Amino acid sequence: MADLEYLFHPRSVAIVGASRDPHHLTNRLFTEALLNFGFKGKIYLVNPKTSEILGLKTYANLQEIAEPVDCVLCSIPAPLTPQLIKECVTKGVKVVNIFTAGFSETGTEEGKRLEREIVEIARRGGMRLIGPNCMGIYSPSTNLTYDIDLSPKSGSVGVLCQSGGHSYEIIIRGNARGIYFSKAISYGNAADLNETDFLEYFTQDEETKIIAAYIEGVRGKRFAKVLAEAARTKPVIIFKGGRTEAGTKAVASHTGSIAGSELIWNSVCRQLGVIQVYSIDEMLDLLVAFTQMRIPKGRRVGILGVGGGASVQATDECESHGLIVPRFPMELRDKLTKSTPQVGTSLSNPVDTSIGTFWNTEALFESIKTISYSNEVDLLLIYLNVVYAGFRLYKETNQSTLEVIVKANQSLDFPMALALLPTEKIVGNELRVEEIEAGLPIYYSLSSAAQAISKFIKLINSAREE
Amino acid sequence: MADLEYLFHPRSVAIVGASRDPHHLTNRLFTEALLNFGFKGKIYLVNPKTSEILGLKTYANLQEIAEPVDCVLCSIPAPLTPQLIKECVTKGVKVVNIFTAGFSETGTEEGKRLEREIVEIARRGGMRLIGPNCMGIYSPSTNLTYDIDLSPKSGSVGVLCQSGGHSYEIIIRGNARGIYFSKAISYGNAADLNETDFLEYFTQDEETKIIAAYIEGVRGKRFAKVLAEAARTKPVIIFKGGRTEAGTKAVASHTGSIAGSELIWNSVCRQLGVIQVYSIDEMLDLLVAFTQMRIPKGRRVGILGVGGGASVQATDECESHGLIVPRFPMELRDKLTKSTPQVGTSLSNPVDTSIGTFWNTEALFESIKTISYSNEVDLLLIYLNVVYAGFRLYKETNQSTLEVIVKANQSLDFPMALALLPTEKIVGNELRVEEIEAGLPIYYSLSSAAQAISKFIKLINSAREE
Repeated sequence: MADLEYLFHPRSVAIVGASRDPHHLTNRLFTEALLNFGFKGKIYLVNPKTSEILGLKTYANLQEIAEPVDCVLCSIPAPLTPQLIKECVTKGVKVVNIFTAGFSETGTEEGKRLEREIVEIARRGGMRLIGPNCMGIYSPSTNLTYDIDLSPKSGSVGVLCQSGGHSYEIIIRGNARGIYFSKAISYGNAADLNETDFLEYFTQDEETKIIAAYIEGVRGKRFAKVLAEAARTKPVIIFKGGRTEAGTKAVASHTGSIAGSELIWNSVCRQLGVIQVYSIDEMLDLLVAFTQMRIPKGRRVGILGVGGGASVQATDECESHGLIVPRFPMELRDKLTKSTPQVGTSLSNPVDTSIGTFWNTEALFESIKTISYSNEVDLLLIYLNVVYAGFRLYKETNQSTLEVIVKANQSLDFPMALALLPTEKIVGNELRVEEIEAGLPIYYSLSSAAQAISKFIKLINSAREE
Repeated sequence: MADLEYLFHPRSVAIVGASRDPHHLTNRLFTEALLNFGFKGKIYLVNPKTSEILGLKTYANLQEIAEPVDCVLCSIPAPLTPQLIKECVTKGVKVVNIFTAGFSETGTEEGKRLEREIVEIARRGGMRLIGPNCMGIYSPSTNLTYDIDLSPKSGSVGVLCQSGGHSYEIIIRGNARGIYFSKAISYGNAADLNETDFLEYFTQDEETKIIAAYIEGVRGKRFAKVLAEAARTKPVIIFKGGRTEAGTKAVASHTGSIAGSELIWNSVCRQLGVIQVYSIDEMLDLLVAFTQMRIPKGRRVGILGVGGGASVQATDECESHGLIVPRFPMELRDKLTKSTPQVGTSLSNPVDTSIGTFWNTEALFESIKTISYSNEVDLLLIYLNVVYAGFRLYKETNQSTLEVIVKANQSLDFPMALALLPTEKIVGNELRVEEIEAGLPIYYSLSSAAQAISKFIKLINSAREE
């Protein structure tokens, strides 16, 4: 097992192929982003055709840099990379992140040959490669990034991601939902360091409490063993690309990977207790549960909201995803009448309460508390559909309704989540969902809430039984 | 069969239970909304405790109104309704929309008795009831509405909806996605007029080209026959509430309905060619296809976008939902190289093109045209993920990219759709999606696009085979 900790602590980074155009994507993604992110080490720009970029002196080549270079970001055309990799070995570089594409994923003999060549040079020289055809490393605790919009705030989720685009989507949309990351690695074609190495790293990384991965293909037999150890140690969530026949071909064109059999993949994940997801939305839904939700003791869910149709749908979604929506006994229903009128409502669970209850902050808090303390359920799913007439026509009340729910989540020691509907920007849906910073798990549909919470409970319970 | 056309053409509406408080929900939903919506008939407000509301004279009771009243909106407490229904009969009212709740859905003997009583009075008097526990009728072509935010623009979709909240969500979120409605009926407990009556009406209504329904329970054996006729005549999309055991109980509490067996329901829908959906999102996704997409001749889909992970996902989603993603022959790939560089891209379908192609309006148009005219596919799915670095960091280009796609959709006679990702309001996602008014079908996830388009093609094809 390689100790990869040094990948996240380079004392210096050289960007080879930094563009003379300050607005060029390479500069914005790497140079500008690293500067803004407060990277503590040295940043060297290599470009033989100019003397300065973004106020930084440039170097004609690596050898011109007097000080040691730990990490190189490579953004030059593929045919030029073997020469650069040689120079990196000579310079004593520890790792090269190869942003450059045009290797095995092209499907051409030349591309495959080039990829083999750079790996051979690196291995002979005792140097590691990330990529090619990737974004590299995001590590907020050590001020490394590959984009200016990724949060500087650290969190508990470690991401290994074979697609650069998906890694952006996971981090940026994750940040918007209150999910923060220990490290993320976009590793592209995985010619040298690969999914097994990164998974092994995250398994022992103390900063990482949950592992999320997007994987297109797996190299070598060690993976299953490492995945088993990872899943024994932490929750592991995997989104696998290339499930279908045409998807398998798309995977080959994207990262030159061999997707493998879906059946085998599914059975391995099931056996090892790995959570499979089928989209980034679903991955984020699960990460919201794992990072923000209190752990329910069981699968019994209380449902509270306004709107009969939605109460029926919430019930159907919860039950069809394996949660239980128990009918409330008369005693509990009687208690709920103290904060809810009986006409136009239903108190038997789902609790389809009145809009007046949601407008009245005390009544809403009381209803939440009554259900939470009842011992009839293990968690509470609240839904708030701001498209409904009351929430839309009197929208000034929505923010205080949201605040009561946040407050209840903070002060009552009970697992709860909010389905905030719908997601489109429509009349009245101008709530400040920075409230998610307050630790309230928020979902954007009833089905995604039910599905994520059910998978969350299932994994937690199976871990508890072991 | 009752001819229900008159329901949508009342010469006058009386709102019984109009509140003295001008900001009260009843006034905002009915009085204010009808005034704003340009209702051409007379509006009478009935409230014995005041003389004027929102500038309109009020009446102590119906008999005080000298002119005929065609429609009554009832918003008084349930125990008072039998007396009102009698007065309506005396007055010669044709239909009463009963907004009031507190009937059979309460589960109490008194609630059930009250509901039976008002139905008996109405039937004896030859008058029809909608509801109780419902919103009533939205009919933009005759300026009827039950909310101030529903679009005055008419369209081709007829909606019958057993939940008032769901009906708001369908109309308002539908409007935001370029879907417009012929009529929508929120019919609650369906004590008198019910799903069968409304489905029969929409089957013969010329303004309605597609029928969408949310149904919790079905009354009487005539329904299956009417549904068969409806599905033979027009596309019918149904979202059924109460699929699970607890959902069945929730349905009883919501509208007093009997949900029935899910197995029987599924088999009836399958036999009759009715499209089943499981959420309003999915219903809207399908309506986007039916109202905005050209009809594909087959199931072969071309995929075009930027981002390898997304291209793999789009392929997996399309294939797993029953579409076919054929590999492009070398000849077509060669043509595509004219508008796409070959490094960091894949041209074999999915076409994972360069960000430069999406920034270059001519190259993008050319790529779309080349695929559309190739005879290799029957439709084109384009994806644009504005969270990706290029689209996010150079966001001024996104609007022109979107405009090219709109233009291509308008000028090339070829079925296409756009997956615009992601939905959350994040950096860079500030596109003016009013472009949907231009008839471009837009989806907010790859899976929803693939699922809706596949179901759309399946129904169209089966209709074609008959």
